[in-house]
Amino acid sequence: MQRIAIIGTGLVGRAWAITFARAGFSVSLFDETDGKTNAAIEFADSVLPDLAENDLLSGRSPDEVRGNLQIATSLEAALADCIHVQESTFEDVAVKRQVFSELEKYAPPDAVLASSTSAILPSAFTQHLDSRERCVVAHPINPPYLVPAVEVVPSPWTAENFWQNTGQLMRDIGQQPIMMKKEIDGFVMNRMQGVLLQEAFRLVEAGVAAPEDIDIGIRSGLGLRWSFMGPFETIDLNAPQGVRDYIERFEGMYSTMAQSQAEPISWKGEAGDAVETSRRERLSLEQLEQRTRWRDRRLMSLSSHQRRETERDQSGD
Amino acid sequence: MQRIAIIGTGLVGRAWAITFARAGFSVSLFDETDGKTNAAIEFADSVLPDLAENDLLSGRSPDEVRGNLQIATSLEAALADCIHVQESTFEDVAVKRQVFSELEKYAPPDAVLASSTSAILPSAFTQHLDSRERCVVAHPINPPYLVPAVEVVPSPWTAENFWQNTGQLMRDIGQQPIMMKKEIDGFVMNRMQGVLLQEAFRLVEAGVAAPEDIDIGIRSGLGLRWSFMGPFETIDLNAPQGVRDYIERFEGMYSTMAQSQAEPISWKGEAGDAVETSRRERLSLEQLEQRTRWRDRRLMSLSSHQRRETERDQSGD
Repeated sequence: MQRIAIIGTGLVGRAWAITFARAGFSVSLFDETDGKTNAAIEFADSVLPDLAENDLLSGRSPDEVRGNLQIATSLEAALADCIHVQESTFEDVAVKRQVFSELEKYAPPDAVLASSTSAILPSAFTQHLDSRERCVVAHPINPPYLVPAVEVVPSPWTAENFWQNTGQLMRDIGQQPIMMKKEIDGFVMNRMQGVLLQEAFRLVEAGVAAPEDIDIGIRSGLGLRWSFMGPFETIDLNAPQGVRDYIERFEGMYSTMAQSQAEPISWKGEAGDAVETSRRERLSLEQLEQRTRWRDRRLMSLSSHQRRETERDQSGD
Repeated sequence: MQRIAIIGTGLVGRAWAITFARAGFSVSLFDETDGKTNAAIEFADSVLPDLAENDLLSGRSPDEVRGNLQIATSLEAALADCIHVQESTFEDVAVKRQVFSELEKYAPPDAVLASSTSAILPSAFTQHLDSRERCVVAHPINPPYLVPAVEVVPSPWTAENFWQNTGQLMRDIGQQPIMMKKEIDGFVMNRMQGVLLQEAFRLVEAGVAAPEDIDIGIRSGLGLRWSFMGPFETIDLNAPQGVRDYIERFEGMYSTMAQSQAEPISWKGEAGDAVETSRRERLSLEQLEQRTRWRDRRLMSLSSHQRRETERDQSGD
């Protein structure tokens, strides 16, 4: 059984551990803060039954998946014999630089060293390493056991084979890699989220619509198709002759619109106040945690729904 | 039973007819092209059983809903006694100007005159009318019986009560209105789709990721949460103290990113070619129609899934 090392077992690391373990990998967990690996195991114990109930454990039982998780008592022990290291420590470039020096020292020379960072470019914390060609970012949307997309981001010195192997490993565990060809601020997903947020704040600032109405436009409008088709497939199906036809018909409209969408906008001014007021009218700060559990339950249920739909597609029904 | 007039019964009008009829309204259909109303009724006959099977007819039987649809033999007859006119004729400002003159002439004086236009500002085809204060846009994402969001867009002279009544009617039939406070190019949804597409093409042009990988980032990443939460609720749940906390933490990151997202980009150059090539590798032009049916089936299944989830939320389970 091939081994994965999870270094840093907070919110992201503990979710990665479950994702690798349910795919049949042996997973070693290490965190330098006392008690964190135990908390990660307790978390797995609490979530595995729900995943099983939603048929999201690749046919394995919670006990079987739980059996694939082992706590390591030292970094060195965690890294021994692993094929892939998934680092999920604190989001700070100095911390990651230091951690990666240690990973390089103790991990087998062929192991991929992957970081879960959501916002730091891989070049920023791997340049000093002797084996920097084996370092990549593998950035999930949390939790990866419910959201398949993972950004695989190379630095300028990442070697093709380590980048490819990371993508293949992601596919092997049931994730869907976004195989980025170069690093860029925000990677792909936060850049897409960023433009949507900029426009959302801009519409609020311009007094065109209230924050809640903009949320409706996504969750009860565009977001439905986007949950099973990307933006390119969506427009490919929205013109009789596909995407080129769509571009011919609508690029002019979007390009006129774009002229009023380029201006930067502050999120901290009136628009931010309006969004904060709107959200707090709907949900108090005390209810945030409960609503987060609701989100996770909805995500699990959606994931289960999509799994059934994909099976139905594949059966040709 | 209150009456709705559907003027223009193509792709959009026929779907509106089903949406109003399943909510218990009496629906009159008129189209000036011979055979189009009959085709709309045939379409309803073909889709109502599927909707019933997915529990998407508000508890009514296909026959009952079908019984709410009547073909009118003249515009005048279609408009008699209606409370709301839903115009879905050809997307051309001259056509709409002419049609709205006739709607004004024959519809009861209190009826709302609503257009389904996706891209023409309401001011562009209602300014000349005597009763222009009762005109709005009510723009759906097609088909409205599967996608609840509807943009309710006033012109500068739309009276508050007609705008409000349109929103209320949308809620009464189970839709979710986006109550826009003023007209703007692209309304809300196409503006949001526009920025996402601009960034998607930009990333392809810059060689950061292939079109298919960008689609993965939405359909297997961000789009999952967006199918049941808008962008504002999403970020509200992504910082310990809610949206204001999120803005404090991440506005800087997004604002740095935004500097490289403002430049306009042509969709017809290399990026467009790459997207076209990528899509055609996955789906030939001949398969487009079949894939469109797949999309509609997935949308129906998702709609049914969401209905069950909403009931579960409301039961406090």
